[in-house]
Amino acid sequence: MAEADFNNAFPEPAVPEPVEGTLAHCRVAIVGLGLMGGSLALALKDHCRERVGVDSSAETLDYACQHAVVERVSSFEEAVATTDLLILATPVRGILAYLDQLARLDLPAHNRPIVLDIGSTKTDIVAAMQALPPGFDPVGGHPMCGKETGGIQNAEAALYKQKTFVLCPLQRTSARALALAQEVVEAVGATGLVLDAERHDTFAALISHLPYTVAAALMRTALGQADEALWQMAASGFRDTTRLAASDIVMMSDILLTNRVAVLEALAKYKTELDVLTKAIESGDVATLRMTLEAAQQKRSELFK
Amino acid sequence: MAEADFNNAFPEPAVPEPVEGTLAHCRVAIVGLGLMGGSLALALKDHCRERVGVDSSAETLDYACQHAVVERVSSFEEAVATTDLLILATPVRGILAYLDQLARLDLPAHNRPIVLDIGSTKTDIVAAMQALPPGFDPVGGHPMCGKETGGIQNAEAALYKQKTFVLCPLQRTSARALALAQEVVEAVGATGLVLDAERHDTFAALISHLPYTVAAALMRTALGQADEALWQMAASGFRDTTRLAASDIVMMSDILLTNRVAVLEALAKYKTELDVLTKAIESGDVATLRMTLEAAQQKRSELFK
Repeated sequence: MAEADFNNAFPEPAVPEPVEGTLAHCRVAIVGLGLMGGSLALALKDHCRERVGVDSSAETLDYACQHAVVERVSSFEEAVATTDLLILATPVRGILAYLDQLARLDLPAHNRPIVLDIGSTKTDIVAAMQALPPGFDPVGGHPMCGKETGGIQNAEAALYKQKTFVLCPLQRTSARALALAQEVVEAVGATGLVLDAERHDTFAALISHLPYTVAAALMRTALGQADEALWQMAASGFRDTTRLAASDIVMMSDILLTNRVAVLEALAKYKTELDVLTKAIESGDVATLRMTLEAAQQKRSELFK
Repeated sequence: MAEADFNNAFPEPAVPEPVEGTLAHCRVAIVGLGLMGGSLALALKDHCRERVGVDSSAETLDYACQHAVVERVSSFEEAVATTDLLILATPVRGILAYLDQLARLDLPAHNRPIVLDIGSTKTDIVAAMQALPPGFDPVGGHPMCGKETGGIQNAEAALYKQKTFVLCPLQRTSARALALAQEVVEAVGATGLVLDAERHDTFAALISHLPYTVAAALMRTALGQADEALWQMAASGFRDTTRLAASDIVMMSDILLTNRVAVLEALAKYKTELDVLTKAIESGDVATLRMTLEAAQQKRSELFK
């Protein structure tokens, strides 16, 4: 009895309140409700206080409301003034335009949100973020996922699951903003990878923008041979190698032009490798050719099992 | 009554006997029990009188027996002497070697089988078939399917289903041989497409061998940047665009070397298209770039829905 009384003298351990500034407390605006933004909004359901959708298309906003992709929709200005985290999810040049708008908005410094973007190239965006007025707390991001079928109709909550989500913090990025961005990464089921913007862009050129360019060039080459039998012969190899060529050309031209230097460098390296292979084929020597193909075969087999 | 008697005067309509020479009557030898030959053997189950397996690997023959991929295994010579249809299913240079052996076998002319191959390039093979001694009845073939994981362990009866199966009849090919080849195509669930060997090879270079070369060059380019973060960023776009690079290098080097002229022509056209894209990126002009990407985007979207 005495023991029970003694125990009762202590209060029950409190369930910890969410720390102010964690995602669960945040009103989150998603600017651009296409495939990427729409999927992000769906994935953030139950992970934040409110999801606010912004898009230039009335049709998309209507779809977002009808399908509960967000809790409410608003203008960009209103979203900036009423949310804690602004996620810019349009094609890259759209993100740059929104950052430019942010720089000119008349908003009290203490009321400015954390700004995360999910654009495919980072150097230009991070430079624009660096130039934002004080009070904004920006951090760059790039989830390594997507589909060749864009638009909110194709959005899915699982798009980010088990994918790599690159974060590019700036010198001015606060620990709080980086932690919140990492919370977003985890909430959508992705794995974070912190890289500086230049390194990201070099790697993205090799691993994503070059493959797209290669796929588009392959399609253009096949188009040069106008014959129905050619398309009848197109099987899974052609289908997969050219898949990226079906990507949205507005998004892709933004990517190629905002990462032009790194893409052109990747293209130059690629052409060198193509010449090595061409020479090995020209040589007619099977040992040389197999040696040239071997490392590529081994690494590709090891990379995706 | 009179009517019934009258009817009874006529014999019952006979169930038509399978015509001698149809697939159901044939003993079929499959030479080379890798992914392609093994899958073909599995798909031909119940469609022919007997399936006989030939392979240079004792391990593969053992697997084929254990897993009932064929009814029996035999040497090449015995298979030639005891079957009605010989299907050559090794890599291209293996097929050429077997055709060379056929040309030197001592077999009575009336006892020589129909010969079908499923090699990936056709000009060299069809030329070797044309030179076979009289009595052999050869026809070229190429099913437009495969996987990057080879070997009999990966064989599956459904591999050929709903795929295009090119047939290249020679001048000397009999109607009976072509009809039998078409029966094979239907039995495995594919759709036949008759093309002459040169046209096949030009198209195959564009639709299959070029995409492979492009994928291998992409892998070689990425390998040049030795950094673990690069591979962490590799997503579905890189995975699909490079998938063909994981293909068996013995098979692929045979293909590239036996279709060298057409592959080099396709590579030259492709490099021109790559230069067009490079210039559009260099120009920095978004309208030019989008125009360059547009036709490729449209055709790819239309081709695989």
